[in-house]
This record gives sequence, C-alpha cells and structure tokens, in this order.
Amino acid sequence: MRMSIETVALIGKYQSPEVAETLVEVARLLQERDLKVRIEQGTASSTGLASAHAVSSYEEIGAQADLAVVVGGDGTMLNAARRLAGFDVPLVGINQGRLGFLTDVARQDARAALDAILAGKAEEESRFMLEVEVLRGGQRVFHTNALNDVVVNKGDLGRMIEFDVCIDDEFVYTQRSDGMIVSTPTGSTAYALSANGPILHPSVVGIALVPLCPHTLTARPVTLPDSCTIDIVLLAPHDASVHFDGQERFDARAGDRIRVARSANCIRLLHPPGYSYFAMLREKLHWSASPRHP
Amino acid sequence: MRMSIETVALIGKYQSPEVAETLVEVARLLQERDLKVRIEQGTASSTGLASAHAVSSYEEIGAQADLAVVVGGDGTMLNAARRLAGFDVPLVGINQGRLGFLTDVARQDARAALDAILAGKAEEESRFMLEVEVLRGGQRVFHTNALNDVVVNKGDLGRMIEFDVCIDDEFVYTQRSDGMIVSTPTGSTAYALSANGPILHPSVVGIALVPLCPHTLTARPVTLPDSCTIDIVLLAPHDASVHFDGQERFDARAGDRIRVARSANCIRLLHPPGYSYFAMLREKLHWSASPRHP
Amino acid sequence: MRMSIETVALIGKYQSPEVAETLVEVARLLQERDLKVRIEQGTASSTGLASAHAVSSYEEIGAQADLAVVVGGDGTMLNAARRLAGFDVPLVGINQGRLGFLTDVARQDARAALDAILAGKAEEESRFMLEVEVLRGGQRVFHTNALNDVVVNKGDLGRMIEFDVCIDDEFVYTQRSDGMIVSTPTGSTAYALSANGPILHPSVVGIALVPLCPHTLTARPVTLPDSCTIDIVLLAPHDASVHFDGQERFDARAGDRIRVARSANCIRLLHPPGYSYFAMLREKLHWSASPRHP
Amino acid sequence: MRMSIETVALIGKYQSPEVAETLVEVARLLQERDLKVRIEQGTASSTGLASAHAVSSYEEIGAQADLAVVVGGDGTMLNAARRLAGFDVPLVGINQGRLGFLTDVARQDARAALDAILAGKAEEESRFMLEVEVLRGGQRVFHTNALNDVVVNKGDLGRMIEFDVCIDDEFVYTQRSDGMIVSTPTGSTAYALSANGPILHPSVVGIALVPLCPHTLTARPVTLPDSCTIDIVLLAPHDASVHFDGQERFDARAGDRIRVARSANCIRLLHPPGYSYFAMLREKLHWSASPRHP
Repeated sequence: MRMSIETVALIGKYQSPEVAETLVEVARLLQERDLKVRIEQGTASSTGLASAHAVSSYEEIGAQADLAVVVGGDGTMLNAARRLAGFDVPLVGINQGRLGFLTDVARQDARAALDAILAGKAEEESRFMLEVEVLRGGQRVFHTNALNDVVVNKGDLGRMIEFDVCIDDEFVYTQRSDGMIVSTPTGSTAYALSANGPILHPSVVGIALVPLCPHTLTARPVTLPDSCTIDIVLLAPHDASVHFDGQERFDARAGDRIRVARSANCIRLLHPPGYSYFAMLREKLHWSASPRHP
Repeated sequence: MRMSIETVALIGKYQSPEVAETLVEVARLLQERDLKVRIEQGTASSTGLASAHAVSSYEEIGAQADLAVVVGGDGTMLNAARRLAGFDVPLVGINQGRLGFLTDVARQDARAALDAILAGKAEEESRFMLEVEVLRGGQRVFHTNALNDVVVNKGDLGRMIEFDVCIDDEFVYTQRSDGMIVSTPTGSTAYALSANGPILHPSVVGIALVPLCPHTLTARPVTLPDSCTIDIVLLAPHDASVHFDGQERFDARAGDRIRVARSANCIRLLHPPGYSYFAMLREKLHWSASPRHP
Repeated sequence: MRMSIETVALIGKYQSPEVAETLVEVARLLQERDLKVRIEQGTASSTGLASAHAVSSYEEIGAQADLAVVVGGDGTMLNAARRLAGFDVPLVGINQGRLGFLTDVARQDARAALDAILAGKAEEESRFMLEVEVLRGGQRVFHTNALNDVVVNKGDLGRMIEFDVCIDDEFVYTQRSDGMIVSTPTGSTAYALSANGPILHPSVVGIALVPLCPHTLTARPVTLPDSCTIDIVLLAPHDASVHFDGQERFDARAGDRIRVARSANCIRLLHPPGYSYFAMLREKLHWSASPRHP
Repeated sequence: MRMSIETVALIGKYQSPEVAETLVEVARLLQERDLKVRIEQGTASSTGLASAHAVSSYEEIGAQADLAVVVGGDGTMLNAARRLAGFDVPLVGINQGRLGFLTDVARQDARAALDAILAGKAEEESRFMLEVEVLRGGQRVFHTNALNDVVVNKGDLGRMIEFDVCIDDEFVYTQRSDGMIVSTPTGSTAYALSANGPILHPSVVGIALVPLCPHTLTARPVTLPDSCTIDIVLLAPHDASVHFDGQERFDARAGDRIRVARSANCIRLLHPPGYSYFAMLREKLHWSASPRHP
C-alpha cells in the first residue's frame, strides 16, 4: 500500500493517564518526522492534551487526516471507527495492555510500526460495517453504524423476548430468546463468540445471526451473505434494548422493526508488516502454538 | 433461467424398488414431451430398467445431457454431483420420503416441477465443491471432490488424533481431537451441524473448519474465505480415515497431508419456482413457522 | 402413597378466563366427592370466583389443605411452590394448553387424575428448592426461595458483569459474563437448558452452575453437590439484577454477595399413575419416540 | 484419615525411563521408612526394576498392600484403578509432567506428600466406578469396569450409528449419532468434556449420558442418578466399538445390548493436605485465578 501521509490524527481512550502518556510520545514521534498532528477533541480534553496540540472534531479528522492513530483498546477503536465511517481515513491501533483484535500494535512497538506505515510498508485491510435503522410505524426513529455487532436484548425485566426475523422481506422464523446478535466478521471474535457464534475470517463476506439463549434448542447461528437485509420485528408485548458495538444504545418498543444491512462504508485498518490474523486468534484463544510437522 | 432441453438423464438410488417406480413415471412423462431419456448405467442395472431405456455412463451423461433428474435422497444427489463435477449439467432432485436439503421436490410434485423446469421457470443455484488431495512424501496418493464435506476422523482405535492445520501455508494450530470437518455451505446443514458447526447460507462463499470433540475447549469452528488452501497434516503416530461426503473413504497415515481447496467445478441445482432455502431450514430444523408481525 | 384428603385448595393462573372455567369444573368435581374446597385469594379475585367458594390465603392453605390443585402453566406452579415452601402440602398441576414439566395433567384428564390421586394411587415426587439471601456489608438485605433457578444477570446497560464465585467459602474463579444461573434439577429443563446447561434428572441431588455467555471460552457448566453454599460476589463497578424462578427480582449492587444453598424445604409433587419423566422430556424436546429394539 | 501402612505397592507407566527413575526414588524413600515395597509385575519388567524389588501381580497387591503409589499420568491411574477394583487399597498418583486430574502430586512434591500420607494427614476421597456388560442374545459376552467412561462409538466406516437408550428398562429414545458417552463424575472432566458434557463434581452421585455429534439437535447431555441401569441397544445394521476409559475395547454387533450401571466397587483416592478440586479445575481449564472480592 502506498499513500502520502501529511496529517495524522490522534485518538485515545478517554480519562486514561496511561493513554495520555503514549499519545504524547506518538505526537512527538510524528512531529520529528515533520507531520501535522491533530488531536481529537474529546481525547484532548479528557487527557489534558488540549493546550499542546491542534485539536479537531471527528468530522475535521475525517476530512483532513491521512491517517488516524488510535491508542487504547478495541472499544476505543470501535468508537473511532463508527465516528469516522463514511470518511476514507485509514486507522492503526496501539494497545496499552493486552493486544486487542483491532488494536494490534503493542505500545513498545509503536515507533517501528509507525515508521513502517509511513514508509508505505503497512498491510491494509478493509472491514465492512453494518447500517442499522429502527422503524416505528414505518418511520425511521433511529439510525447508526456498527463495526462489530447489533445486539437486540431483553430488557431488565429478565424475561425472554419474542420477535420475528425476516431476511430480504421473507419471513424466516419467530424466535423466543434472550435476544439476537447480528455480527460482522470483525464482531465474530467479540460478544458473538461468547454466545457460541462462529468465527468468521475477516475476508469472509458474511453476516452472522447468533441467537442468545434461544428457547428452542434447534435455533442455531446462521451466516448470511452480506447482501441481505435483516429485519427483527419485536412482537407485543416485548420491548427490547438494542446495543451497537456495546457502546450505543436504543430502547426499542414492541412493534419496532430493527433493520440491519451492510453499510456502504468500510473501515481501512493498517497493520505493521508481518501481521497475522491467525497468530492473533491463536494468542487470544490460547490455541496450541507449536507447529510439529516437518 | 432459459435453456433448451433435449436430452434428460435419470439417476436413481440403487437397489430401491420405490425409486424404480418413480423413475418409470418420470421417464414416461419426459417421453410424452418428446425428450430423449437416458438412464445412468448403475441405476439401470440395479433397478431393472436396463432393457426399457437408453443407458449411459456418468461420462456420457456429462457430455450429452441437458438436465439430470436425480431420484432418491441427499446421498444419491451427493454421489451424482461428485460424478458429474466438471460437466455443466444442471441437476434437480426428487425425493421419495422426507425432503432433503438437495432433493427438494416431493414425488407428488415431480410432474409440475419438471414442467416448470422445461418451461424455463426454474430457479438455478450454483453450489461450489471442494477438491481434495492427499500428499505422502510430496506425492499425490489420492484425489477426489466433495460437495458437502471432507472429514478427517480418528480411526477405530478410539483415541484422539493429533494434526497440524495450515492455511495458505501458514501454520495455524496443532489440534488434538476426534478429527476435523472441512465443510462447504452445502455441507453446513449436514454432518457439520451435528458437530456444532455454523449454518452457512449457500450464497456465503466460505469454507467452515469444524473440530470434532477437540481436547482444547477454545477450539471453535472457523469460517474461511473460499480462496484458502487448507492443509491438515497428521502427526506421528496418528493415522486417520478421511471421508468425502460420507461416501468415499481414504485411509491416511501419519505424515500424510490432506490438502483441501475450493474446486474449479460448481454444481448447478435447479429448484421449482417458489423454492425457499429458509423454508427448507425451517422445516428440517423444526423452527417456528408462524409469522406474527402485522 | 396413601393420604387422607379432606380439604383441597385450588390455585390458578391469574387473569385467565380459561383457567377460571377449569377451576369451576375442578371445584364441582371435588364437591361431588364431599371434599372441602378453598380457593386461593388472588386466584379467586382475579377469576371472579370469590363469591362461590371459601377463600384462603397461601398461609391458610399451607396450614389446612391436604392437597393443592394448581391450574395453569409451569409459571403458576413455580409461584405456588415458592409461596407454599415450608408447608407440607402436596401439589398437582393441571395444564390448559401444552403440558408443562410441572403441570403434567392435561385438562381433559383432570377428572381421572384427581380420582386416582384421591384413591391414593398417585406417584409422589420430592423436589428440593434453593434458599437465597443477598448480603450487603454483612447484613441480609433480601431473602427468598426458588424452585427452578436463581439468575444473576447483567442489568440493562448491556455490558458484561464481573463477579467472584466461591463455593463453601473457597474461591473458585472470577468470571466475566452476562451472568450466572444457579439451577436445581427442576430448573435444569427451564432457562438453564437454553444456556447450554446440563439436564439433571430430578433424582440427581445436585445444583448446576451455568454461565451466561462467558467471556472465557473454557467457562463450562458445573454440577455441584446439594450440600454446597454458593456465593456470587459482584465486583465493582458491576451492579446486577437477580431473578428467582423468572418471577421475583432483586436489584443487587456492586459488593453484594448473593448466597445460594439448598433450602430445608422440599416440594411434594403428585403425578397420576403412569407418569414418566423421560416421556415428558421426549415430548418437550421432540426426541424420537419409537423404540425399535425387539 | 488414619491407617496403619506396612506394605506399599508401586505402579508405574510402562516403557517410560523417566517413570523408572521416580519409582526408584519413591522405593528408596519408602524403604528408609521401613515399609515393605512391592512393584507391580508389568511395571517392574517394563522399567527394568524387576531385580531390585519384590514383584507382585495386581491380585497380590489388592490382597496385601496398604497403599498403592501410581507414577505416571491419568491413564496409568485409570488402568490401576480398574485392575484394583474390588480391593480396598487406597491410591495416590504422582505425575511426571503436567498434573492430571487423578495424579495430582507433582514429582518434586512426592516426598512431602508421601510423608503426609504416612502420617495419616491425607484427605481421602471415594470415586465410584461403572460396571459394564455386553449382552448378546441374552448371554453376557463381555464384562468389565470403568472409572471414567464407557464410550459407544461408530466404527471405522465413518457412518453414524443408531441405537435405543433404555433406563431401568424404560425406553427413552432412539438416537442417531456418532455414539454415546456414559460418564462418571471422574470421567466428566475427560473425554465427555470435549463432547460438551457437563462437569460433575466428584461428590455428585450421578452418571452423565453425553451424545457424540447427535443427528437431532435437541439431543442433550442428561445426568442420571447413580441407581440407574442404562441400556444401549445397537439397531441393525449398526455395529459399534465400545471403549472403556479409552483403554479397553470391545467390538459390539447390531443387536448387542451394552448395559451400564454403578459398580459395587469404589476407588479410594488419597490427596495430600490442601488438595482442592476447584484449584485443579482452575488450572486445567485456565480459569481466572485471582480473587478480587475483599
């Protein structure tokens, strides 16, 4: 991948002194290379870096930055990805603690990784997102994007909910369960995995439907082509809360139709040379790591 | 789908008097429409229809038939599909008993379905196959195709086996288990489903790796893009038997490399108008069938 | 089982006209046999039967009835069981619709079943209950019983919660998940089954711990002896809601200790002659029903 | 636990030079304490220790030893347990490598553990076994014991088998699957766990039925009381191989009835002071180990 990088945005986990430190380091490193640095507004104010650097909104970053460096965990990356959906800014994730699936550069490797990226040696990967709208009486009452998943969840009454699932306007089944996860390949190693969902390699162009504690034992995860429109229609008297990447939330009511489809937007993720999805899986899932074939 | 049909092949489950009856009916129906009918050799001899009709080998069917009608269950269709892989003959499946995933026309609907197909009103669907070779000391010692799955299985000693899994020549993990299923979307509703594999819609272009009773609890099914080459390398002293669509079998030895990739061949499946994959799933998995949304 | 029955209590699902009808039938049937009939207070007022029969509180039923007939579904039985815990009244369940696990007499069989019970031909079964208390700063802030399960559940924020599990005061593990089900054998075919919990035959004297969507893939259901005391301690900042038989609820806060142990109370369930637990399982889980051995 | 120990038997993994070393060490240690040491025959001959010590058969050990020290992994212990079933000799397991569930004393702790045991400070635990017979035409054609499990398994044809399951002579269901595991609590953390079986604490007096890749998705593990007699009847034309603790094997034919019940024999396991079942589980299953409650 080749690109000419002049302006770099920094986005960090909010309220984290450790992240602030790394941000300062990264900013210095970028300035040494004569790049323009812009700190995302909320990051700047919550880490006390507002005074030292140019501060930009997500919209300004989307419009102007050639690269966004995200410092934090996968949650920080998910948030940045949703905010920058629709712009074409590539993202690279630096992790403070244990590596994440999306933030795969360790803090101590940040310098080398950024130099490789600036030298055009990064591996670029595209991850698709979901677009979600909630329809009430035919009107759109909510709209957002998700990179990992959309989760329709029973509310705090603790009772199972009932809903119809339709795919491309065809009725598929009525389900009684704790809810339903609609997951991208990116989300397949997140919450969906805890709910016995299938791991989807990022190159598989599919959307997984993963039921949460279904009442019927034959309700199983299904992977659909990414061209599908999936409707989840809440049946009276069941309300539900709908979660997006575990970060945003909408309180849906009986009768609401949650409509999920592939978004037109993709996320561009950069990895340092040598990145391996399987190595990441192996480490995160504690798979045996020693090849024994000759 | 439009096609001009002149020659139709009939393939049936062997040794089944019931199937023979249906074959006779279908043959008559086709002859009434002035079509040339050819009966597959083994079908003809095992059902006693050899004298009444022109008899052809699978190779002749592949070369000459414009349509193949398969009468039996999914097993019969799997066998026909493997035999006709590489030819471009569309297949339609007529089932005697309970509908199958691949043989989705009920016997009593055969006439209507065939008429619809001859009138060009069928829905055509393409299903990809797997190509498998077994390498021993670098030499290919076995080669075949599979439409559902390739299953590497512990032998009759009843002990778990150990093998390395490599994807596109990258080591992924060493696994100790009862074996491994490599499944197409078509196979995802067959044996793989019993082993907790994910259902893959036929339009999802992916290959599922489903471990059988893995010793490590974090070994989970993974869906890979169809461009992958998957190697399973048996570690000494573990031999294994390898099964293809549950029909063919090869006895592999420690050190053997079972290499699976998407085949260049696809199967063309014809369905009568109104066919629905989800309706099929719903019926086979006993999912709730009553839409309740307005 | 032999017992002399003089006074019979009737308990029904609230707000159900159908149940009211069955209650009237059962009451008449019992009066024809010269038995004293008492209708539970809430049942009487919500079904409009208050005027026609003697009305009793649960406490009076516990003290005076020789038999309680419960009309409704399993939910109605669970509620009655919790209310009558500590009394020694045997219960029989009559179901309006589909049979339940606990309400296993169909409406049309009610007469025959009750006659068999009155004639001393019932099969009696004992089901143990759980006793739960919530401790906050060492003080008990909540206390109840459950026949099916105690479910500690993430609240409506939709985020996983974290808690320690201790058994008989020994630390077992820290878990991050959607929550935890503590289930009796009776509850093992209810919610716990949807969460992949093990079915425990009612004669197995064990308590199942079933994690809900655990973050760690190696967290598996564990069945403990009924002598155990199980503590679930919510770790800051995680609050949780705790549900009892899906009917009662307590909002627990970070730091709270939910303590579950076998209750001293058991429920006495009566079944008509010929009752079979496995037949019930087979019907409810759609297991194959046709013996084929000679 | 108090007992007077005079004669100690040594049993080791066969053909293992490392185990031979540990055996020599343990023998010396016991002789220093003036105990009579007897080496099991097969152990002695396969490790070259036959000349140095008194050699005994399993029967002699059963009759004469006050303690048996088993050096190896869980497989060695399972074999010793089956051979000594019916005798009353307590067993302690010393492991060379990674700790096992049954061999829970690390080699470097052997001295301290044995001293504690000799001083009467061990914790004794009883584990029940299964008794199995295979009936053919009403005649018993095979008979053995198992401490972990009895596994009925499809043979090497790779096709699912069909069998009826009866419990206490009541038909329960007909199953089509790869086979069935009948497991004790001891076996619940072994093969059964890989097949999604429930973990049963050793104090739970139950027997788990765990189906292997069942064709019907509603076939779920069931835990039965230990008083049950479980019959698995192979339906024609299905043969099967039956495995006992993964060590013994019997080739069963269509029509054979595999009958499993709790054995009258128990195994007495000794643990050094401080042994914890949950600590063992935590380590083996990689559960989080850090208590965080105050």
